[in-house]
Amino acid sequence: MKSSLKIGVIGAGRIGKVHAENLSRMPEAEIKAIADLYADDQLREWAGRLGVSEVVQDCRQVLNDAEIDAVFICSSTDTHVPFIIEAARAGKHIFCEKPISFQAGLTGKALDEVRRAGVKLQVGFNRRFDHNFRRVRELVSEGKVGTPHLIKITSRDPSPPSPEYIKVSGGLFLDMAIHDFDMARYLSGSEVEEVSAQGAVLIDPAIGELGDIDTAVITLKFASGALGVIDNSRQAVFGYDQRVEVFGSAGLVQADNDFPNNVLLSTSQGIYRDKQKLFFMDRYDESYRREAESFIESVLYDRPVAVDGSDAQKAELIAHAARKSLELGRPVKMSEMHALGAV
Amino acid sequence: MKSSLKIGVIGAGRIGKVHAENLSRMPEAEIKAIADLYADDQLREWAGRLGVSEVVQDCRQVLNDAEIDAVFICSSTDTHVPFIIEAARAGKHIFCEKPISFQAGLTGKALDEVRRAGVKLQVGFNRRFDHNFRRVRELVSEGKVGTPHLIKITSRDPSPPSPEYIKVSGGLFLDMAIHDFDMARYLSGSEVEEVSAQGAVLIDPAIGELGDIDTAVITLKFASGALGVIDNSRQAVFGYDQRVEVFGSAGLVQADNDFPNNVLLSTSQGIYRDKQKLFFMDRYDESYRREAESFIESVLYDRPVAVDGSDAQKAELIAHAARKSLELGRPVKMSEMHALGAV
Amino acid sequence: MKSSLKIGVIGAGRIGKVHAENLSRMPEAEIKAIADLYADDQLREWAGRLGVSEVVQDCRQVLNDAEIDAVFICSSTDTHVPFIIEAARAGKHIFCEKPISFQAGLTGKALDEVRRAGVKLQVGFNRRFDHNFRRVRELVSEGKVGTPHLIKITSRDPSPPSPEYIKVSGGLFLDMAIHDFDMARYLSGSEVEEVSAQGAVLIDPAIGELGDIDTAVITLKFASGALGVIDNSRQAVFGYDQRVEVFGSAGLVQADNDFPNNVLLSTSQGIYRDKQKLFFMDRYDESYRREAESFIESVLYDRPVAVDGSDAQKAELIAHAARKSLELGRPVKMSEMHALGAV
Amino acid sequence: MKSSLKIGVIGAGRIGKVHAENLSRMPEAEIKAIADLYADDQLREWAGRLGVSEVVQDCRQVLNDAEIDAVFICSSTDTHVPFIIEAARAGKHIFCEKPISFQAGLTGKALDEVRRAGVKLQVGFNRRFDHNFRRVRELVSEGKVGTPHLIKITSRDPSPPSPEYIKVSGGLFLDMAIHDFDMARYLSGSEVEEVSAQGAVLIDPAIGELGDIDTAVITLKFASGALGVIDNSRQAVFGYDQRVEVFGSAGLVQADNDFPNNVLLSTSQGIYRDKQKLFFMDRYDESYRREAESFIESVLYDRPVAVDGSDAQKAELIAHAARKSLELGRPVKMSEMHALGAV
Repeated sequence: MKSSLKIGVIGAGRIGKVHAENLSRMPEAEIKAIADLYADDQLREWAGRLGVSEVVQDCRQVLNDAEIDAVFICSSTDTHVPFIIEAARAGKHIFCEKPISFQAGLTGKALDEVRRAGVKLQVGFNRRFDHNFRRVRELVSEGKVGTPHLIKITSRDPSPPSPEYIKVSGGLFLDMAIHDFDMARYLSGSEVEEVSAQGAVLIDPAIGELGDIDTAVITLKFASGALGVIDNSRQAVFGYDQRVEVFGSAGLVQADNDFPNNVLLSTSQGIYRDKQKLFFMDRYDESYRREAESFIESVLYDRPVAVDGSDAQKAELIAHAARKSLELGRPVKMSEMHALGAV
Repeated sequence: MKSSLKIGVIGAGRIGKVHAENLSRMPEAEIKAIADLYADDQLREWAGRLGVSEVVQDCRQVLNDAEIDAVFICSSTDTHVPFIIEAARAGKHIFCEKPISFQAGLTGKALDEVRRAGVKLQVGFNRRFDHNFRRVRELVSEGKVGTPHLIKITSRDPSPPSPEYIKVSGGLFLDMAIHDFDMARYLSGSEVEEVSAQGAVLIDPAIGELGDIDTAVITLKFASGALGVIDNSRQAVFGYDQRVEVFGSAGLVQADNDFPNNVLLSTSQGIYRDKQKLFFMDRYDESYRREAESFIESVLYDRPVAVDGSDAQKAELIAHAARKSLELGRPVKMSEMHALGAV
Repeated sequence: MKSSLKIGVIGAGRIGKVHAENLSRMPEAEIKAIADLYADDQLREWAGRLGVSEVVQDCRQVLNDAEIDAVFICSSTDTHVPFIIEAARAGKHIFCEKPISFQAGLTGKALDEVRRAGVKLQVGFNRRFDHNFRRVRELVSEGKVGTPHLIKITSRDPSPPSPEYIKVSGGLFLDMAIHDFDMARYLSGSEVEEVSAQGAVLIDPAIGELGDIDTAVITLKFASGALGVIDNSRQAVFGYDQRVEVFGSAGLVQADNDFPNNVLLSTSQGIYRDKQKLFFMDRYDESYRREAESFIESVLYDRPVAVDGSDAQKAELIAHAARKSLELGRPVKMSEMHALGAV
Repeated sequence: MKSSLKIGVIGAGRIGKVHAENLSRMPEAEIKAIADLYADDQLREWAGRLGVSEVVQDCRQVLNDAEIDAVFICSSTDTHVPFIIEAARAGKHIFCEKPISFQAGLTGKALDEVRRAGVKLQVGFNRRFDHNFRRVRELVSEGKVGTPHLIKITSRDPSPPSPEYIKVSGGLFLDMAIHDFDMARYLSGSEVEEVSAQGAVLIDPAIGELGDIDTAVITLKFASGALGVIDNSRQAVFGYDQRVEVFGSAGLVQADNDFPNNVLLSTSQGIYRDKQKLFFMDRYDESYRREAESFIESVLYDRPVAVDGSDAQKAELIAHAARKSLELGRPVKMSEMHALGAV
């Protein structure tokens, strides 16, 4: 057994940098190389501070580097499938950001290759590693709320992405709500059987012009009989609004937002506290670290990964079903996605 | 102008008693008579303690009593319409519990008579008078959350009613969610245009056998473009679970449950507090008092009532649409209710 | 056994009115007469609304009324002792506002008369009946915090009384902190053995000119070995600030302030909630009602009162000791109060 | 200007390890050597993981290493003064854990040498860097509570140290409350003029046998006229209990404990949440990191340190005064400490 892994990071945008910084602090991981199409001096300087000297533009240098044990694929979504396939064929373990692809067929193809190669693949549903949501899941698993009857997820970003990003994002369901679809499966411990989506463009007409929505309410039916409801918004001006609750036959468990401090100021005008954490990197810093640690440990100790390819596949399929439901103006069953030509 | 009103209370079940007790403490109201089909010595004793000596079984005695200025109709729902019509024809102002009826046509007929008679009619959507929800509405009205994008209502009873009650209740939508439909209109300041309901029987199969559901998620679309979502359960074992939030372009406003005390106990086992108020009469005691006061004042000072017949009518129609949506397995527009034969 | 009591209210200032209004709603009590030195038409009108027609200026009319079973003494503190003595001699049960007097000797004399007459005397430490503090006491009594080690009481008024009132109030310790001295005994279940007071004039120099303080920290030692600390201020601009905590070998129990609603508003500026209840009549409305009910029941059913004369006596003595400690600039033992000439 | 500092860590016990781990992650710091009297293979292994190969038993090797720019003195308190003096004479900047010494004279001597040498000295009052307390201070500084009238600090450890540690700890005031004395100065922005301490042995008689106390209430008077109160316990079974509040003419600011998650579980038994963070390294992990960063930056950019020698000196003097007050059973003024022979 190795005592540490040599890692290649592919894509050093915002999320690639988060992973690289976390990996650079783990004794069990060593970043051997970072590949980014736009690698420049600034990126090299940043990498240098992490102790990484190999910074390249060509991803193949990482994918073909025999010394590299595992890759973190953090490039744009359209590159995930080809890079997964190449990495798998090269025998490298894979951490890939969500979603794997925008098409069920492509995702399936990538997972087939991963299976064939016998490498590990973990998908970046980092929220499963959040201290609050993880505690919710624990309490649900321990039966503290009895049989789950209703899963509620509020998931709102502080501000909408740029129109450029929205164009390539796959839309609200695949880009943003996909985390919530995974969370719904994670918290309920059950599979989604039916999806009904309502959407609206309330924040920015430009988003609507791109064929996307910025506000959504998505209702789920689970195999267990439980119901679920997710609400999404691209813009919560008071910060990142990420809350869940699981209501069941024996009780309710709720997780609130995280705050930068808990200080209360009482004056003649009322009581005030600072708003919640604003950005995903504040709110989820710990979960990004933990998911990377979990992946590293899974590879080192040959344990199953915490979030695997089928988790990505299922969440993606729910996103496709949500899109279809919005199109058709009616609930869509997962079982009819084939007949609808949606997969 | 009179300085106080003579009131007749019709129906002295649980909710009739709440109103009678509140009225008995108001200087501007005097309960002249209480009518209840099952009036007995026990009821007479209770009425005596409120200073009411006239307790009768025949409601007509109240409806025909020329001295009585206004009636509180708290009898079973099937009697609401005939009693409203008789009271209106007798020139009495009317406070009526919700819903007015189980059929849009009947409700419309009752309201026509009220209009013709020129009497006031207030409907028992007491939650509009709750200190928390009222404050939410105030903040929304003041523009503190900007344009509302999403109205969320959690509304769960502590335990299901008896099968006997469920049989005559009109079902979850008309009996229970109707409060939430009114709340959605109240908080959003907009009309509902489309309803999509998901339902399940998760608590008691007997409820399902009666053709009802015990768990529901209802999605709304408002004329303003905003979305809404209501979740209902007949059984929250930790108490009456009644929370709302309004999310908008400029912020979020949330109201939590009320608690019997705010005491926290911290031990080596964790932190504990007593569960929330359990029954609607604990949680909403103030709102019942305030709605009755508001009605009395509306009559005394000839002001519009806070919740009128059209509010009942609209909430009932949403309930009918929810029922239809559940039946059809698809969203239902309010505008198609006629075509669907649902009104 | 009587089924209801005839009550005379002596003193119809702010607190007398609170009691009269509560009594007027209790089926077991009937206010026979109200006496107030300054009784006028306005007072008569107010009394009329409560159904009380006998409103007199001469307290003796109440004290000598053979039909009256019990009196509520709500007049100024200097009249408490003579009225208690007269009432006791007339065989009437007594509810008296705090403190009984400003001198230990006088209080003792009044209590001797009460004992001799065999009537009941309850003292107006209403906070023992507050839903939060009562729950704290219950949890402490049940041993949930183990052996109490530290009792902490925060007690701050929203705004200072007028200089006129301060002159006759007995000062911060006897007027205001006396509630906290009683609370300390109530929550700890132990007697105070030593008092150390620190005081300051930080709010209004006029208070200092009258020989009083407006800010205080008082440290207590209990017979059980536990410590206690009380902090007082005459002016908390954000409302009535009344919190307690009991820390012990097995845990901590805390009671927070009460709020008019629990609504939270989140905007880009932060999170806001309305300030706490502002006045003692908002915060303690329930406790005033409950203490009067408790007194009425004690008399009707011949049970010991919840707060008796010795409770008043002990709290007053702690107040005198606090005063002495402030004077001497050192801790004062209760056992040395005699030697110090303070009792 | 250097772009990074070479650091020597002296003392690699619990707190020395915390600092070393934090320093190992800072790009601006490099740990050149670690000295610990009991350095063994286990310590070497731990140091190796931080990338530190030089681990020695003799502190002089660090103090005499010309390459080392700054030292972190984390050894036992009795060694602080000699090591500070040696380090200062060697021209090294110094971070020293609290307290500097158990005697005012010794601390003064160390500070004289530091001044003479012109090196920087920062003292380990890490709590000033806590996200909550720092925010409290900010709000106080911005005048949000007006003029401070009362500073309240609750400071309770989860469990008492071993008798061995208590023997060399300097006692509760110098070991534990010293953080709170510093916090009182930090939050109030004013100097302490008088101290009055009450103490008790309620947790473990063994602590009393060693001449120490385990429970304390300490009252402070500030130069500004404000009052302060600190309560300490060596054992809060529900976790590290560290709260502060500043009450002033315009409001109140409060900081609560930190929790590992914010999850609430509601069941028929009540509402439950996990207890607060248990250990100082959980609660204050961020503050340890920030204080070290602050020190590194002060040295690199030649800025004043955030907590200097006089801060240590003043907090120590308050601790001595508290001890004296407990001995004498009366308040002690800082100005009389000389006369009392306490300095």
